[in-house]
Amino acid sequence: MDLKKESIKLHREAKGKIAVKSKVPLKNMTDMALAYTPGVAAACLAIAENPEEAYSLTAKQNTVAVVSDGSAVLGLGNIGPLAAIPVMEGKCAIFKEFAGVDAIPIVLNATTVDEIVAAVKMIAPSFGGINLEDISAPKCFLVEKRLKELLDIPVFHDDQHGTAVVVGAALINALKIVKKDLAKISVVINGAGSAGVAITKFLLDLGVKDLVVCDKKGILSYTDDNLNFAKKELIELTNKTKKTGLLVDALKDADVFIGVSAGNIVDRTMIKKMNDDAIVFALANPVPEIHPDEAFAGGARIVGTGLSNLPNQINNSLAFPGLFKGILEARAKQFTKPMLVAASYALANLVTAEQLNEQNIIPHIFDEAVSRVVSEAVIKVAREEL
Amino acid sequence: MDLKKESIKLHREAKGKIAVKSKVPLKNMTDMALAYTPGVAAACLAIAENPEEAYSLTAKQNTVAVVSDGSAVLGLGNIGPLAAIPVMEGKCAIFKEFAGVDAIPIVLNATTVDEIVAAVKMIAPSFGGINLEDISAPKCFLVEKRLKELLDIPVFHDDQHGTAVVVGAALINALKIVKKDLAKISVVINGAGSAGVAITKFLLDLGVKDLVVCDKKGILSYTDDNLNFAKKELIELTNKTKKTGLLVDALKDADVFIGVSAGNIVDRTMIKKMNDDAIVFALANPVPEIHPDEAFAGGARIVGTGLSNLPNQINNSLAFPGLFKGILEARAKQFTKPMLVAASYALANLVTAEQLNEQNIIPHIFDEAVSRVVSEAVIKVAREEL
Repeated sequence: MDLKKESIKLHREAKGKIAVKSKVPLKNMTDMALAYTPGVAAACLAIAENPEEAYSLTAKQNTVAVVSDGSAVLGLGNIGPLAAIPVMEGKCAIFKEFAGVDAIPIVLNATTVDEIVAAVKMIAPSFGGINLEDISAPKCFLVEKRLKELLDIPVFHDDQHGTAVVVGAALINALKIVKKDLAKISVVINGAGSAGVAITKFLLDLGVKDLVVCDKKGILSYTDDNLNFAKKELIELTNKTKKTGLLVDALKDADVFIGVSAGNIVDRTMIKKMNDDAIVFALANPVPEIHPDEAFAGGARIVGTGLSNLPNQINNSLAFPGLFKGILEARAKQFTKPMLVAASYALANLVTAEQLNEQNIIPHIFDEAVSRVVSEAVIKVAREEL
Repeated sequence: MDLKKESIKLHREAKGKIAVKSKVPLKNMTDMALAYTPGVAAACLAIAENPEEAYSLTAKQNTVAVVSDGSAVLGLGNIGPLAAIPVMEGKCAIFKEFAGVDAIPIVLNATTVDEIVAAVKMIAPSFGGINLEDISAPKCFLVEKRLKELLDIPVFHDDQHGTAVVVGAALINALKIVKKDLAKISVVINGAGSAGVAITKFLLDLGVKDLVVCDKKGILSYTDDNLNFAKKELIELTNKTKKTGLLVDALKDADVFIGVSAGNIVDRTMIKKMNDDAIVFALANPVPEIHPDEAFAGGARIVGTGLSNLPNQINNSLAFPGLFKGILEARAKQFTKPMLVAASYALANLVTAEQLNEQNIIPHIFDEAVSRVVSEAVIKVAREEL
């Protein structure tokens, strides 16, 4: 199959991937009087009296905005808002099909942090949650932080936290196979953009102690004056032994490599420097940092990628639909670390001891239980946190 | 039926009135690869190369934002964005059911012209058109004007132009019955908010010459220093004989009364001052300026209201679904006066000579031909204007 040609054909024939439907009948004057004027005034007044009623009387309760400025789309980079729409629509279709969440693509003619924050703040009343998507680092961190402070609905940057939750689940299960402990492993993360930053912080939350982050120039180091604030923060949190050098140096004696960077930048000789039972998550898309065959040739025991045609696909779609389904049902104000940790363990535990092996460390995205267990985990923590 | 209670029940049980649906299958990995990563990149790149492809490959081609700040909702006034959601959702449901247009409610946490303009400008790339709704006058005029200048998609304030198109159609047909000429009638409009201003300008476009506008204080007059810019402009355009006084004075010898103001402010004695074969459109909702029985008692020959349980319902739903369906299909950049005039005549002409009578001057909103003839009229003019 010519994937590019077939995908264009699908988009053209479907005329876009999402549509709106009415949930109420509009077949006669009584229908109109109830759903629209004059009856609708009663719903308006009920909300005007008690704003919480917006969650009972409108679709806000189940609707998420998928917001992007198109500045960091897939592996395509800064292609702008219009060209980002197909990704956002795809995400919205997945939200609906996998978790029943109504999601709306909102691509922004905006570039600065201030603009993006202003736009999202102004449109927020329509929505029950905000899924930030494909916004470049480091501005994505500031956008998310400021919106979390400003809004009373959950704000979630999926490229960060969705990725982190799924990587965490895959790592938890991989460690069961190699019988290593989160607190004792040595982890190398290559890539210090949105995913790299979030995975780093999330693995620390999960209990990892020894963690080194690299970017294009090698191990993040205080000697580099050009680091952005997010990378500087990572140095504070990681590399306790103050290693220096390139990615290849970082990999020496590491137990886990997590790539969220670019294709074909790791080879078998680099994997050979890692410890026995090496775990390699090469998540660059569509070309991984190292092909699984090459990683196995270098001695890796467990390999995961972002690719659907290979085992162990580490894919955000395992997390974001259930996470939002859960937080919307729980009516929690924001995602918390314990919610995301619980979701990660719930995802990991969906693979039973009998099912778990080197080729099967993470549930399949078409496993219907996925969004349910993730949402239940979020709801449980949300109730405990009340 | 207890309309308020039943309407609240409907909203609560339906959990809001609109939902999203996926137009593409997502049942297996091939579906995912085509609709989402990696195949979706082809659609993104096609748009990055040629932005026009966004209209072929995404739902932008059929999607309208229904935007409100909640500052002038129904007869309820400034109830804010959250409480406005039920109206916007109702409108979106009507867009879909009546014309197949996908419409999304966007209520804004914004109050000033600058804020509303900034918000709409930033979210515009997602949409094929902007339907402004229930924004108070006079800021609605500035918001619309500035957005039309800034955006390359149609911007339409329905409270203004949707109302005007339908009133125009009703008037065209009413004049056929009473055998009077647009260019020779005397029209009084009571209410100088968004609807009053737009109806005034539209009737002038249709060829009305003699027109007087009143607000709460009576006939708009240069002697009132407190008039906003929109009302000042109306004085320039109307009242060529420089009448002064109250509404009752304006009505003397008038052929047509159009109320877009408040309930129960006109009585039969005022209608008696009008010319023979008086036409009375009392459009305040939910209580008209004068009940039809009272208007007939005052000598009116033809009466229209906004109410669904009475003959001659003059309702925006006759216009906005078809207007947007047409302009989206035509891919025209903006609504023009000739498009709206053509839509008004198309709507009027849907009532045949045989069907036309005092109780039936305007098509019924459930006449399936309505959105079709309106959209066809817009498309025809759009092609002529190319």
